[in-house]
Amino acid sequence: MFIIGEKINGTFSKVTEAIKNKDKKYIQDLALKQIQAGADSLDISSGPAFQNQADTVMEWLVKTVIEVTDVPLCIDNPVPLVIEAGLKCCKGPAIINSTSAEKSKLEALTDLALKYNSSLIALVMNEAGVPQDIDSRTALALEILSYTSEKGLSTENLYLDPLILPLNVAQDKIKDTLETIRNFQILSDPAPKIIVGLSNVSQQAKYRPIINRTFMTMAMEAGLSAVILNPLDKELMQTIKTAKFLLNQEIYYPDFLEN
Amino acid sequence: MFIIGEKINGTFSKVTEAIKNKDKKYIQDLALKQIQAGADSLDISSGPAFQNQADTVMEWLVKTVIEVTDVPLCIDNPVPLVIEAGLKCCKGPAIINSTSAEKSKLEALTDLALKYNSSLIALVMNEAGVPQDIDSRTALALEILSYTSEKGLSTENLYLDPLILPLNVAQDKIKDTLETIRNFQILSDPAPKIIVGLSNVSQQAKYRPIINRTFMTMAMEAGLSAVILNPLDKELMQTIKTAKFLLNQEIYYPDFLEN
Repeated sequence: MFIIGEKINGTFSKVTEAIKNKDKKYIQDLALKQIQAGADSLDISSGPAFQNQADTVMEWLVKTVIEVTDVPLCIDNPVPLVIEAGLKCCKGPAIINSTSAEKSKLEALTDLALKYNSSLIALVMNEAGVPQDIDSRTALALEILSYTSEKGLSTENLYLDPLILPLNVAQDKIKDTLETIRNFQILSDPAPKIIVGLSNVSQQAKYRPIINRTFMTMAMEAGLSAVILNPLDKELMQTIKTAKFLLNQEIYYPDFLEN
Repeated sequence: MFIIGEKINGTFSKVTEAIKNKDKKYIQDLALKQIQAGADSLDISSGPAFQNQADTVMEWLVKTVIEVTDVPLCIDNPVPLVIEAGLKCCKGPAIINSTSAEKSKLEALTDLALKYNSSLIALVMNEAGVPQDIDSRTALALEILSYTSEKGLSTENLYLDPLILPLNVAQDKIKDTLETIRNFQILSDPAPKIIVGLSNVSQQAKYRPIINRTFMTMAMEAGLSAVILNPLDKELMQTIKTAKFLLNQEIYYPDFLEN
């Protein structure tokens, strides 16, 4: 399970404040804490507050983080120009977060992934939104996969995101997401990687952590390969560890919750 | 999810002590606490300490419990005579725990289930033990299902137990159990009920609760219909509730962890 820490995001008010105050220490601590807690990568998002200067904020964030760590960064912004500003500052390959199946965007971001030897997260949705049924979602995923393959992006560098709808508004669709994860795995050989933004499942809910970790367990069993989450949620990280043992993805050892 | 509470079992030393002292209050409190915590049924087992008087101990346990509750009891003993001693005392239909596919035992316990209008838990194993691969386990399950159907036991009254092997000795077999649960569901229409003894998965392990609840989540997603567990494990019961919402088995409501 490839874990991308979600905490460096301007939607969190303390991060916005740190950006405003050029408080490198706050951002760097947040980076190191997430890695210490088990993150393999860090999402970097300025959030909606800095629209006019999103590119310089992204540059500052990336430069600040790479002073303290070499983990790959997940450059997160709706605007390709801002994403490129971030990619330019990265030391090595990064992850682009994200494109959809919308032609112009998919083209622009596939080009960026190739140019910067980076991976690409593709949300399985298009201009019309998220396809309603499992078959349409699978067909759209295949469209994305075909396009990126033709352009020369290796399947290894593609993360398909089936999109989780929140429990409180689409309770009847959660099982579909699990089924979609299963389906995506047979689209190609090797299989594309499959990612979700975990916290979406519990949006607006009162007891988010237990909803997140319970869904995460199911998604892992269904074949999830990567996830964007809060690695500082200790119980969630312990659940992931336990699920890895049960799914025989990592060798079990008795003291696994120590440290 | 049909939940059978596991706590009234002579393998717990306090229960053995209560049996020795004819301490009805201890047993009755344990019954009520489990029901209060969400158990739909209670397993009743004298454990290995009372072999020569297992039938009278079983009678005493059942009579003690039915003084305070009407929930169906799960009469748990390796010896058919002891099981019948328990069934005789029950107020209504009970659950027999358990038979294997071994012919003489399966015959005797199917007869008892029919005689006492009760359900039957059948472990999917025979004289040779637990079949090694998924196909053999499914074939043996079908054998049990065919036999009990022919004898006149309705599929609704049959619980197939695919048998969980412990994580610490058979890590590579856990996924097979989940696959087996999926397979059993297509053996007949209506599908047979599928049950596991949850605590088996964490035998001898250091962090049993998190192993139990993480496996339980996966098993529910795979299609489990009933389980024997410790309902006093609050986090486990909360996880089951959350999983039911995610699997759309129960209508989600925001305050679900209150009370």
